Amino acid sequence: MSKYSIKDIAAMAGVSIATVSRVINNKGKYSEETKEKVLKIINQTGYKVDGSAQSLKTNITFTIGILVPDIKNFFFADLVQKIEKELFDKNYSTIICNTDSDEEKEKSYLRMLENKKVDGIIVISGAKQGFRFESSLKNIPYICIDRKPADFNKTIFISSNHELGAQDAANYLLDHDVQRPAMVIRKHSPILNGRINGFRNSLEEHNIVFDRKENIFCFNGITSLTKYLSTYPETDGFFAIDDRLAIELIMALKQIGKKVPDDIQVIGFDNIPADEIISPTLTTIAQNTDKIAHYTIENILKVIKTPNESGDQILIPTTLVKRNSTF
Amino acid sequence: MSKYSIKDIAAMAGVSIATVSRVINNKGKYSEETKEKVLKIINQTGYKVDGSAQSLKTNITFTIGILVPDIKNFFFADLVQKIEKELFDKNYSTIICNTDSDEEKEKSYLRMLENKKVDGIIVISGAKQGFRFESSLKNIPYICIDRKPADFNKTIFISSNHELGAQDAANYLLDHDVQRPAMVIRKHSPILNGRINGFRNSLEEHNIVFDRKENIFCFNGITSLTKYLSTYPETDGFFAIDDRLAIELIMALKQIGKKVPDDIQVIGFDNIPADEIISPTLTTIAQNTDKIAHYTIENILKVIKTPNESGDQILIPTTLVKRNSTF
Repeated sequence: MSKYSIKDIAAMAGVSIATVSRVINNKGKYSEETKEKVLKIINQTGYKVDGSAQSLKTNITFTIGILVPDIKNFFFADLVQKIEKELFDKNYSTIICNTDSDEEKEKSYLRMLENKKVDGIIVISGAKQGFRFESSLKNIPYICIDRKPADFNKTIFISSNHELGAQDAANYLLDHDVQRPAMVIRKHSPILNGRINGFRNSLEEHNIVFDRKENIFCFNGITSLTKYLSTYPETDGFFAIDDRLAIELIMALKQIGKKVPDDIQVIGFDNIPADEIISPTLTTIAQNTDKIAHYTIENILKVIKTPNESGDQILIPTTLVKRNSTF
Repeated sequence: MSKYSIKDIAAMAGVSIATVSRVINNKGKYSEETKEKVLKIINQTGYKVDGSAQSLKTNITFTIGILVPDIKNFFFADLVQKIEKELFDKNYSTIICNTDSDEEKEKSYLRMLENKKVDGIIVISGAKQGFRFESSLKNIPYICIDRKPADFNKTIFISSNHELGAQDAANYLLDHDVQRPAMVIRKHSPILNGRINGFRNSLEEHNIVFDRKENIFCFNGITSLTKYLSTYPETDGFFAIDDRLAIELIMALKQIGKKVPDDIQVIGFDNIPADEIISPTLTTIAQNTDKIAHYTIENILKVIKTPNESGDQILIPTTLVKRNSTF
């Protein structure tokens, strides 16, 4: 396939022919960075090294796959973009696959990534609770972000601390005059038990009896909102499971003549740009995507170099961002 | 590499072993859909067909690459997701590459896609004005979306009709009491001459002399806005080059005490979800992403089957969406 010469490789890598030769023959001095760059280009171009270069590790492709459920969701797009940027700086190309939270699609893309010989896979919010990569080759390292892996003891898992974040959100409401809070979810919310547990913990700490049916409101448009508020008219605080839902909720509350925060305070989760566009601006729990991206890269590169069997769990703290939808 | 049997292939494709055999040997009856499914799985698994199946086209990988400048931009994310969904239904996997509008990154991802043997490449808004794919193999078909290709006579180009859309936007302002309109761009706006031309055409049709320095305002925060409005205090209508900018502008106008639309009308371009969150809601020119996605798929599959040298240009009409930021 290749028509590249060692001169082409040197030009593409921006190094001398002698350097390429040193890397190929694993002799003499060159930096780790130079080595990765040269190997990457050799791999991409399909340049055939001669027999003397048997020591060259040719099974590295310097490509990493990312499965992501929905690139239209700002949190995911932001995270994926940060991961891609940092990986690119480290000479890795990123293959992004949009899975629609569909298990069949996820499987199909995993097969595709396997077939394209990626060095590792980052699974963001896998479709199944308890993600398992049924690799037919069983040798592609992967890590899970935001949704727990099935083989919990063997796979690295990185996520925001959803439980503590939700607890902070509910604590904030209860410490700012809210007497009767409800958590708001969607009809088809992905199961986020961490956030629900955090909400419950906060209520219990404040000596409020948590009743799933009463304290969790499944928002499904204006009608569901008026119905919920006529059943529980004393409701004065909503914790929405994510900011997109919180914004829909504020717009619906405005439509039925409820004032935010005067009648009902609202807090969300994620910290998306629309939070500053809505009026009133939305108080929320921010996920630290910089840090999630950073740990993701550190760990995927680690498991690529040394298969990891330790099942580390890394939970990243969230922070509360105060805006005008709460007191 | 492969440890798959014909039985595995049949199971994965959800067809009988006999059907797989018929496809492999190109004998007997099966639908085009079944054939594609079986070939795809054979390709993905690396299943080795025996000598009798020489007629099998094994160079098809059923993967298509997409270069996209910024998946955090809603218009791009929406378009990519629609393309991905329709391609998946047609048994193609999509490799999404985020290029940051960076030429070097674009080149690197093109090399990667070439190396991963995709069947075709969809280039959305290439970094260079006049995109050219310097393929070393020169045999991967590609089409350009939204940014014109360099070899205009040979490459299919699909885009919204930015010029007519912008003209509609300006016409709307001028037909609704605006006397002194300005177009608003960013300091580092990607060059969108089509939209600027459309704005200019509208002004000239309304017998307003277009002066680039006077009628194009480069928005760069509150200070630039107050400065522009003190230089041209009679300004009563803004056409922002995209909705994200229009929203920033509305927020800045509110901060300096200007009423939208009473003092100044604002119209945007793109039709993103935030348009309905901002107060007042944003009148805009909607791009028809369904149709752009549909034409994109139709044409990439066409050029994969039969290399096209005709350089078709497909311009998709936009539509005006009236909301509350204009009269």
